[in-house]
Amino acid sequence: MAHFSFDKVLIIGVGLIGGSLALALKRQHPQGRIVGVARSVASLERALALRVIDQAVGLDQAELAQAVGAAEIVVCAAPVAQTGPLLARIAPFLRGQTLLSDVGSTKSDAVIAARQALGSEAWRFVPAHPIAGRELSGVEAALHDLYQDRNTVLCPLPENPPAAVARIEAMWRACGAQVLTMSAAQHDAIFASVSHLPHLLAFALMEQILRAPDGEQKLALAGSGFRDFTRIAASNPQVWRDICVANQAALLSDLDAFVVLLAELRQALERGDAAALLDLFARTSAARSAWGERAPQVAPGALPAAAD
Amino acid sequence: MAHFSFDKVLIIGVGLIGGSLALALKRQHPQGRIVGVARSVASLERALALRVIDQAVGLDQAELAQAVGAAEIVVCAAPVAQTGPLLARIAPFLRGQTLLSDVGSTKSDAVIAARQALGSEAWRFVPAHPIAGRELSGVEAALHDLYQDRNTVLCPLPENPPAAVARIEAMWRACGAQVLTMSAAQHDAIFASVSHLPHLLAFALMEQILRAPDGEQKLALAGSGFRDFTRIAASNPQVWRDICVANQAALLSDLDAFVVLLAELRQALERGDAAALLDLFARTSAARSAWGERAPQVAPGALPAAAD
Repeated sequence: MAHFSFDKVLIIGVGLIGGSLALALKRQHPQGRIVGVARSVASLERALALRVIDQAVGLDQAELAQAVGAAEIVVCAAPVAQTGPLLARIAPFLRGQTLLSDVGSTKSDAVIAARQALGSEAWRFVPAHPIAGRELSGVEAALHDLYQDRNTVLCPLPENPPAAVARIEAMWRACGAQVLTMSAAQHDAIFASVSHLPHLLAFALMEQILRAPDGEQKLALAGSGFRDFTRIAASNPQVWRDICVANQAALLSDLDAFVVLLAELRQALERGDAAALLDLFARTSAARSAWGERAPQVAPGALPAAAD
Repeated sequence: MAHFSFDKVLIIGVGLIGGSLALALKRQHPQGRIVGVARSVASLERALALRVIDQAVGLDQAELAQAVGAAEIVVCAAPVAQTGPLLARIAPFLRGQTLLSDVGSTKSDAVIAARQALGSEAWRFVPAHPIAGRELSGVEAALHDLYQDRNTVLCPLPENPPAAVARIEAMWRACGAQVLTMSAAQHDAIFASVSHLPHLLAFALMEQILRAPDGEQKLALAGSGFRDFTRIAASNPQVWRDICVANQAALLSDLDAFVVLLAELRQALERGDAAALLDLFARTSAARSAWGERAPQVAPGALPAAAD
């Protein structure tokens, strides 16, 4: 883990994700100063009490102006839908070489929002998505090693100076993350497939059972396979509404392909084509088993984050 | 747990499910004799060595005739597709009050197979489905408490004498199971919704990723939500081919309803109807959270069985 020296990092939204970033940065560079920004005074006080942040700043204009002006990096770790409004709010106070980044699960929308909010200052914004989470939320759930050995995806803008991208990359590497770089469109297509579509399907399966006249009986008999498959259907509804709306295009495209695949499976099932079913099940079962062996193990108690 | 006295129970197929039944029965009535029947001599020898069974019998006609003739209960715990052929094989040797049962994940097909194989002796067959499993298979994975506090569903036939149903029910209660009774059609509709459709969707999601040109990259970035959602896609392909074929009608009907629901969700997504998405996500998230709190906890290390 390379060392990352910093003077002052400002984190807007000090919950699980922002708080864990703060803890990771402070752990490896205790001299650096972490400034937490939030609307809620209570959550700022908890973050201070837990020593996750060194200084608390509200959304008051004057206070914010000073804090943003003095920050080397500002990370927006608030819910995805607030990235645009928050960047617009701090835009007037940007000066010098201050860099901006975020932690959102969707990136094309963040790029659009950043360009709108920042205009000619958009070069400062290096979009990022750390792929980590816990079932718990809030600053109390923050962990200094949440990002250790996890991936963080950067989606640099053409207008980002290479040094700006390198600096944000160094920040995440200092947290223990492996950093990958790709376009926002590529990022969104990937996460539509491996995260957003599965969430939509899990929500839909629960909905189908809730609508069934014998839904209660079905739930009473559901077993461990159902438990795993639907675990992500317990995710935060607001977060997932925002992600679905933000990643609409990629998600629609993946959903359409999935419905075509289901139609193909339906035909095999209807004509009793046991060979076709076995062929598909054998291929996917082998691939899932192989993936399970090579993918990083989930820590005990760690469950899917609302937005992983 | 009510005591269950028995003289001789014959279990065809001594793997995880049959072996666990043997262990549970012996534990609470050590005087009773468990006879294991299997095609494979090696697996019979392992079952004897582990003291899961007291006696081993192959599929040889004469040996089988004597063992079946002397058994009080014969439980078919072989893969679902073999229930019919195995019942046909033992049918000539049935006498007295010997009862038959099974452990299959689909019940309408078992009823049809049993009626065909047994003819006027079908009254002996009480269809059963214990809802339990582990990620491991084979007699080495058998546990005496696999059925403890789990559900077992019985789907009695109209021709079953009430005393026959009561006896099979008592056997499962003695293993610690809660016993529910319903029709085979009702059983199959329920498990199509809470088990078979989720498996099909998990297999399909893996297939969609394998077909994608950037599938490898997608798998490299998939996180813990994907891990849980697709865990059942690692299930045994042969078992799931058989289940899908056996429960074709109920599964097709559930799949069709699911595709209609996906079309509804797609429309909400396409028109950017955040309120409709939030409404559905909030309802299903609350229901899944409530279910997670009241459903029995899964033992550490326990994963979905191939056929739970």
